[in-house]
Amino acid sequence: MRLISADDIAAAQRRLAGRVVRTPLMPCPRLGDAHGLDLWVKAENLQHTGSFKARGAMNALLALVERAGAPAGLTAFSAGNHGMAVAWAGRTFGLPTVVCMPPHAVPAKIAAVRRYGGEVVLTEDLLGTCETLAAERGYHLLPPYDNPDVIAGQATVGRELLADGPPPGLVLVPVGGGGLISGVAAALRAAASGPTGSTEPQAGPATRIVGVEPVTANAIGHALRTGEATPPQRPRSMADGLAAPFAGRHTLAHVRALVDEVVEVREDDIRDAWWELMDATKLLVEPAAAVTLAALRAGLVSAAPGTRTVLVLSGGNVSPAALSTLA
Amino acid sequence: MRLISADDIAAAQRRLAGRVVRTPLMPCPRLGDAHGLDLWVKAENLQHTGSFKARGAMNALLALVERAGAPAGLTAFSAGNHGMAVAWAGRTFGLPTVVCMPPHAVPAKIAAVRRYGGEVVLTEDLLGTCETLAAERGYHLLPPYDNPDVIAGQATVGRELLADGPPPGLVLVPVGGGGLISGVAAALRAAASGPTGSTEPQAGPATRIVGVEPVTANAIGHALRTGEATPPQRPRSMADGLAAPFAGRHTLAHVRALVDEVVEVREDDIRDAWWELMDATKLLVEPAAAVTLAALRAGLVSAAPGTRTVLVLSGGNVSPAALSTLA
Repeated sequence: MRLISADDIAAAQRRLAGRVVRTPLMPCPRLGDAHGLDLWVKAENLQHTGSFKARGAMNALLALVERAGAPAGLTAFSAGNHGMAVAWAGRTFGLPTVVCMPPHAVPAKIAAVRRYGGEVVLTEDLLGTCETLAAERGYHLLPPYDNPDVIAGQATVGRELLADGPPPGLVLVPVGGGGLISGVAAALRAAASGPTGSTEPQAGPATRIVGVEPVTANAIGHALRTGEATPPQRPRSMADGLAAPFAGRHTLAHVRALVDEVVEVREDDIRDAWWELMDATKLLVEPAAAVTLAALRAGLVSAAPGTRTVLVLSGGNVSPAALSTLA
Repeated sequence: MRLISADDIAAAQRRLAGRVVRTPLMPCPRLGDAHGLDLWVKAENLQHTGSFKARGAMNALLALVERAGAPAGLTAFSAGNHGMAVAWAGRTFGLPTVVCMPPHAVPAKIAAVRRYGGEVVLTEDLLGTCETLAAERGYHLLPPYDNPDVIAGQATVGRELLADGPPPGLVLVPVGGGGLISGVAAALRAAASGPTGSTEPQAGPATRIVGVEPVTANAIGHALRTGEATPPQRPRSMADGLAAPFAGRHTLAHVRALVDEVVEVREDDIRDAWWELMDATKLLVEPAAAVTLAALRAGLVSAAPGTRTVLVLSGGNVSPAALSTLA
């Protein structure tokens, strides 16, 4: 399985320039002091559509247009953030977009997809419905994570955080299907191999890259341990953005080659970390964005005192009902 | 009553450089499209201690030290944000700080004052207890809003938002005791009088400045209408940061001279605006910060389509219990 290259990432960055938000890398001394780290957050909750997914979706669409011209439309399956991102990307080109969502999808996320101009189809058969739309209408099925163009789009998160200061000693990334951590790791390893190095990213010792997923939604961790892409139990977590049904082939290859470790956090720890993260940063984030802090709080990840540490805040799409569980 | 001058504001800006966060002025196209405006938010929720109060408290302390040397300690009365700001400012100089808070103060805000090193005294007699501390221990009583140095500190919010783009056509500011709007209006009017103008701020036609307070916590509005500083009913609002017990003499003079209008919003409108504001900006803000959007939603303020509009987000200190009321 070929990993994405530094050239792929540079191409994504060129495509996305001016189209996505260059999100801030913000210091968080309060959390840093609490954990003895020089702690920063990469605020992808401030990205268009409220999550990093905008990067991957837009890069995949732009790459497709470059190679094959604009499709008749777009389709995607998603419980939320990816669907919003695809609808947003499609609207940029005036393309009709159909997002297949599970019947239990959060109403606020359904409404958000519609706000970006997407048509919503509620169905248990997510993939099958998308494939039918692709076959019958010629729509392009834009996958949520297991795709090199999507991964290269997410990699621009890593490029940006490197451009905003010295290389971090520790980067913590939420893991669902693995697209974000695959991209971020590829960008960090490509940089570690040097500006004149090969275009293939190399695992480098400079930065420790740790993925974090819920114990109850651990497709990547399960796949790393067993080689099975699909976990035995249906994923379910308050961090609903991380409830990926299976580990991707591309993402698993990137994680195996480039990521130091993937750890798993409990629901109670996610809830406590979620509030601490919002209170300390004054950013509205979704629970998925807090799994990294949950791992620090639970002592699952440690680093030398004062280590420059970046938590990637994956998104900020949350409902009032979810917030009410904090009380 | 002398209004603060452009020189006062420039001095505050010099004192505060490097000590307070230069908060971002962030575009919010989603809210702008909804209201036909070119809408921006000044994110004072990202300020040290989570609100603009850090500016006024720090400027007042630094001005005091310049004029009279460091006091033995600081004391203040506050239901929350001002107390946190004074404790934070005092800690910078290693000064002991006692914050007098009402017995019904939100536990999270009490905890926050303590986190910044402040000692908390719960008392019904807020002012009397502070005055006793000042007399017995030589502590300096740092007032929450009715003070020229505090107002000049808050004015740096106005300076910054002017530096970050063309002069806005409309600025909306939450109003409690009136310190923030007094400062912001002074900065905007000073700029309108031109760089070579008098050092006394002048009301200028360029920017419409509107204050917004809750119907149920309307000390300034009541004072503007009746001349009475203290409203007949004890102020009470979900926007607890705006529940000032009385209109200040200094702040009222600034509002009369420099502000175009003060409007009042209902609790239901504050709640709806609060969620819309957080969902659209992905910032964690307190209800007080949402009264400006509530005024737009309720049609209490209008402007020509496309008007460059700034909402000053006053702070982000909110409790999980308050968030649960959104569900």
